[in-house]
Amino acid sequence: MTSQPTLAYIGEETAGDAMHGLVRRLYPICRSITGDGVRETLRIIREHLPLEIREVPTGTKAFDWTVPEEWNIRDAWIKGPSGEKVLDLQNSPLHVISYSTPVRATLSLEELKQHVVTLPDSPDWIPYRTSYFKLGWGFCMSHRALMALPEGDYDVCIDSTRRSGHLTYGEFYLPGHSPEEILVHTHICHPGMCNDNLSGIAIATFLASGLAARNNYYSYRFVLLPGMIGPIVWLALNEHKVKWIRHGVILTCLGDAGGFTYKKSRRGNAEIDLAVAHALRHSGSEYQVRDFSPCGYDERQYCSPGFNLPVGRLTRTPNGEYPEYHTSADNPGLVSAAQLQGSLELCRCIFDILERNRFYINMYPNCEPQLGVRGLYRTQGGTAQALAEEARLWVLNFSDGEHRLLDIAERSGLPFATVADAARELTNHGLLQGADGS
Amino acid sequence: MTSQPTLAYIGEETAGDAMHGLVRRLYPICRSITGDGVRETLRIIREHLPLEIREVPTGTKAFDWTVPEEWNIRDAWIKGPSGEKVLDLQNSPLHVISYSTPVRATLSLEELKQHVVTLPDSPDWIPYRTSYFKLGWGFCMSHRALMALPEGDYDVCIDSTRRSGHLTYGEFYLPGHSPEEILVHTHICHPGMCNDNLSGIAIATFLASGLAARNNYYSYRFVLLPGMIGPIVWLALNEHKVKWIRHGVILTCLGDAGGFTYKKSRRGNAEIDLAVAHALRHSGSEYQVRDFSPCGYDERQYCSPGFNLPVGRLTRTPNGEYPEYHTSADNPGLVSAAQLQGSLELCRCIFDILERNRFYINMYPNCEPQLGVRGLYRTQGGTAQALAEEARLWVLNFSDGEHRLLDIAERSGLPFATVADAARELTNHGLLQGADGS
Amino acid sequence: MTSQPTLAYIGEETAGDAMHGLVRRLYPICRSITGDGVRETLRIIREHLPLEIREVPTGTKAFDWTVPEEWNIRDAWIKGPSGEKVLDLQNSPLHVISYSTPVRATLSLEELKQHVVTLPDSPDWIPYRTSYFKLGWGFCMSHRALMALPEGDYDVCIDSTRRSGHLTYGEFYLPGHSPEEILVHTHICHPGMCNDNLSGIAIATFLASGLAARNNYYSYRFVLLPGMIGPIVWLALNEHKVKWIRHGVILTCLGDAGGFTYKKSRRGNAEIDLAVAHALRHSGSEYQVRDFSPCGYDERQYCSPGFNLPVGRLTRTPNGEYPEYHTSADNPGLVSAAQLQGSLELCRCIFDILERNRFYINMYPNCEPQLGVRGLYRTQGGTAQALAEEARLWVLNFSDGEHRLLDIAERSGLPFATVADAARELTNHGLLQGADGS
Repeated sequence: MTSQPTLAYIGEETAGDAMHGLVRRLYPICRSITGDGVRETLRIIREHLPLEIREVPTGTKAFDWTVPEEWNIRDAWIKGPSGEKVLDLQNSPLHVISYSTPVRATLSLEELKQHVVTLPDSPDWIPYRTSYFKLGWGFCMSHRALMALPEGDYDVCIDSTRRSGHLTYGEFYLPGHSPEEILVHTHICHPGMCNDNLSGIAIATFLASGLAARNNYYSYRFVLLPGMIGPIVWLALNEHKVKWIRHGVILTCLGDAGGFTYKKSRRGNAEIDLAVAHALRHSGSEYQVRDFSPCGYDERQYCSPGFNLPVGRLTRTPNGEYPEYHTSADNPGLVSAAQLQGSLELCRCIFDILERNRFYINMYPNCEPQLGVRGLYRTQGGTAQALAEEARLWVLNFSDGEHRLLDIAERSGLPFATVADAARELTNHGLLQGADGS
Repeated sequence: MTSQPTLAYIGEETAGDAMHGLVRRLYPICRSITGDGVRETLRIIREHLPLEIREVPTGTKAFDWTVPEEWNIRDAWIKGPSGEKVLDLQNSPLHVISYSTPVRATLSLEELKQHVVTLPDSPDWIPYRTSYFKLGWGFCMSHRALMALPEGDYDVCIDSTRRSGHLTYGEFYLPGHSPEEILVHTHICHPGMCNDNLSGIAIATFLASGLAARNNYYSYRFVLLPGMIGPIVWLALNEHKVKWIRHGVILTCLGDAGGFTYKKSRRGNAEIDLAVAHALRHSGSEYQVRDFSPCGYDERQYCSPGFNLPVGRLTRTPNGEYPEYHTSADNPGLVSAAQLQGSLELCRCIFDILERNRFYINMYPNCEPQLGVRGLYRTQGGTAQALAEEARLWVLNFSDGEHRLLDIAERSGLPFATVADAARELTNHGLLQGADGS
Repeated sequence: MTSQPTLAYIGEETAGDAMHGLVRRLYPICRSITGDGVRETLRIIREHLPLEIREVPTGTKAFDWTVPEEWNIRDAWIKGPSGEKVLDLQNSPLHVISYSTPVRATLSLEELKQHVVTLPDSPDWIPYRTSYFKLGWGFCMSHRALMALPEGDYDVCIDSTRRSGHLTYGEFYLPGHSPEEILVHTHICHPGMCNDNLSGIAIATFLASGLAARNNYYSYRFVLLPGMIGPIVWLALNEHKVKWIRHGVILTCLGDAGGFTYKKSRRGNAEIDLAVAHALRHSGSEYQVRDFSPCGYDERQYCSPGFNLPVGRLTRTPNGEYPEYHTSADNPGLVSAAQLQGSLELCRCIFDILERNRFYINMYPNCEPQLGVRGLYRTQGGTAQALAEEARLWVLNFSDGEHRLLDIAERSGLPFATVADAARELTNHGLLQGADGS
């Protein structure tokens, strides 16, 4: 990452539509944890963001793991007794169990059923299944379609390859004033589903392009990785960079209609945890904040005990908690432009907090300074203090070198932005000084 | 403050009436943050308490502030078109905006209204307004009176002076066994209102005279100061004394019918905070305990970050939270002898806790000592233990050098006095020793 | 304690009946804090457990206390005007106030009543009273029986001795891999009552015999002592052993139909406190956990400030909180085999936690290790994780040298056994190592 990239900045008012457009465009691509679907996905993202594309060879060691063989699929179908296709990969990338080995065979209906996964309780939906670490093959289809198949012989075809190649991922590094980094992770492996995780991809993309148009204190690192194996490989290859990560967040499932759920980092009281909780509290949205658990998505790797990074996970409805999860019903209708927009705005708010959350020192610590003569105070007594004035008093009183602005916002109950604006104003009047002398 | 003063000690049973008498006597005086009204007020208090009167010259620097010019007013009135007075300072000291510059003019009704403040929502009440730090003049009157004024010419007169002089305050220092101090602050600047703050003045006066009749561990310092500028000036002139302040409390709004509200010191867990919370919990009164905020009354100065003193604020209904606040309706009817009495008793209870709250050491730390042979235990088994016996066991078990009596009272749920009495009894029996060897 | 004792191990399914049998057998014996009733009780317990019997001479100093004279009683009765016995010790050991001095006299009904204690509110029950530290004599009887006595002369007889002898207690030490000890205390002084404390005696006896059949990490020390004076004497004579006590529990009132109540040690967050709270939370029983107070049973001595041992107290309904407490209604019908069984199982569960609660170290701390290749992970994605798999992830993530298994169980919400089983499995696969290298 050398020259400052040229970025197509999308304004807030239209970002939602643009994100939903990106979701729809990426939707049909057959992705997996490796292969050309991932490459095509990253190529399209690159139209918005000058991602670096990385290729990690099969067999590369990554802690206890090894980069797997690359999987690609050209075609897959099932033809029924009368020769017509009763299942076709072109209709949905979910129709084949990901990482299925190639097959060409004729089977009885009974034999075929051994290789078909359905959801009897949701008979119209196709499930999503993978078999990354076990050789085998299979199809996924709707239960209703399977039940409708007549007795007879079925030709099945999976025209796939599983062979030495690469694991592909994207990375966008945006330098700030400080080498301290904020890490944003989103996974790029899921095929044929929108909330999980084209929503995360779209938010990360537009968040990055928005940040690139600003002057940031922190450096930002966006990593677009296959789930599970991806962060393991990235961490193994980038251990020397980890020491710069000050805050991090996993973005996924951010397009559905649910409220927000933030899962805290393993540390539980990291600054990112406090910042997200504050942003949510003042967001006007429904939300939950949950403690860390080692079950879930890619936070498991960043929060493994050897790393224990301050990385939380932001979703709307979390993985596994909405009925459409990991099925064909997670389609472009499940996510909306407005919901994506709301998620993007929350992320911006979180990063605004992190960017501005500093220690200040009150230059007049003994009693209050005269605010009135500086135009910072009502000049007649007896009326209620305005919010801004209240914020000034809070900032002055607690800018003692022990409270950051976010601490002051939490203690006062005021929104962070009000507190941070008061700090800027007081600094301009010489009443406050950044703890680093600024 | 040299010789021990002679004090008129008022017994508990009559203190309420005496305090209400003092409130009524001080009520008509036209006070401000400086001037002869304050001097007259302190002179009357001196009939009860040998206050030192201090005069600080205009122009004296106090941190970011300067002692302002002294303001005095002899007369003020408005005469209507027919020559009769439609407003007269003699009827209420609230009729003139405090620190109004002198004026003598004839105005149309419309011009007059530019200089009159009313409360349209409380049309019978006169508001209280000040203009300490901005030159100007104005009147306050009831909205109903203003509305009744006919068109015509109005003669207005404010016969005031605003010129170099002094800021006047009172201080009463009562030496105890220790140079460690308890600071009691009350403000003396408010004219024509009773709860804010003749109630605070009356409580402080009678509290001081009661303490002066006792043998105290702590030294007590009562400061009767104008609001806002007063504690700033006091702190600036007495920085060398601040190191002795162990506990402090602001007394104000203590005569109304509401429950008690204690606002904690900035430290939040200072001994005064714990003592007041304990006293309130066992008071049988309605009460609230609130966290510190830098908005409010004079606690703002004592709790500024450079001082961060353990000073809380005790009120009944806090400033701004009762409808009569800062209006002529805060009159002698709003406060009662019984309510003042209750506030005084609570203060005495708080100071009793602070006086007796010490570390003790159990001289028999291994297993319980024999209480029965010392007459401190029921001699037959099987019946419920009495409260006093329970207190003895608590005091013995937790007098390990890490728990003060108040900690033990809190942990046991017993009233402080029961615990402190048990400690005295156990000390008399040689089972306990004060941690300082007493 | 020299040779390993031969123990009659009673299986879980029959322990309840066996314990109730022991309760019924010990019930009629006239116990006190000293004397032959205690010796007979310990002799019978020795049929189940090779207790050491200790005899401490009268006059032995124990901190502030002295071992009292030994009390024995052969007979006691009251004969009515017509010569028939209206009270007979043979009917209930509660009929005489414990430690009554000998008496042989003829009294009027009125004089007799000065020496009789009854419970007017529970007229059919005989109360339990003692007079250990005060010379005197008296009877206890039902209020109904007292009321039925006619006027006339009564012959009274208490054929007791109160003279130099011994205080007798039992101790069972079971060596484990470590010299670190778990202390189990139960009191043996109460006559003629079952819940208090034949239930505690029975649980302790069968718990000890069960532990003796196992291979334990901890050494166990069971002390069967008279209440109050017993632990004082034991602690005074065994101060050098105290340093080995890592955990301890008082067992009493464990046979009634109530839920469990655990009273925490004075430390409040000792491992025993956490272990019992965890066991109770997953027990499926009603329970309460209470903070320590210095009022109660023998925890008072172990938790005196000079010792401050991590000793809690486990009961079903605590002393003083059930109507039959310290009366003749605390009879074999109040306790049941099933209730004793449930208490025993809870104790076993608590000790299982303490035995297995260790620090482990994740040998693959950077990212998750591959569980699938080791058969520890579902091989297809998309389905809910099983509980055991969840436990593996929790154990791996938090085995960082700072969390013991119980901490991990608490944080995850999983039962301790599930977590401990996962740790064993992961250790067997080389993914985990005991922090002590095992």
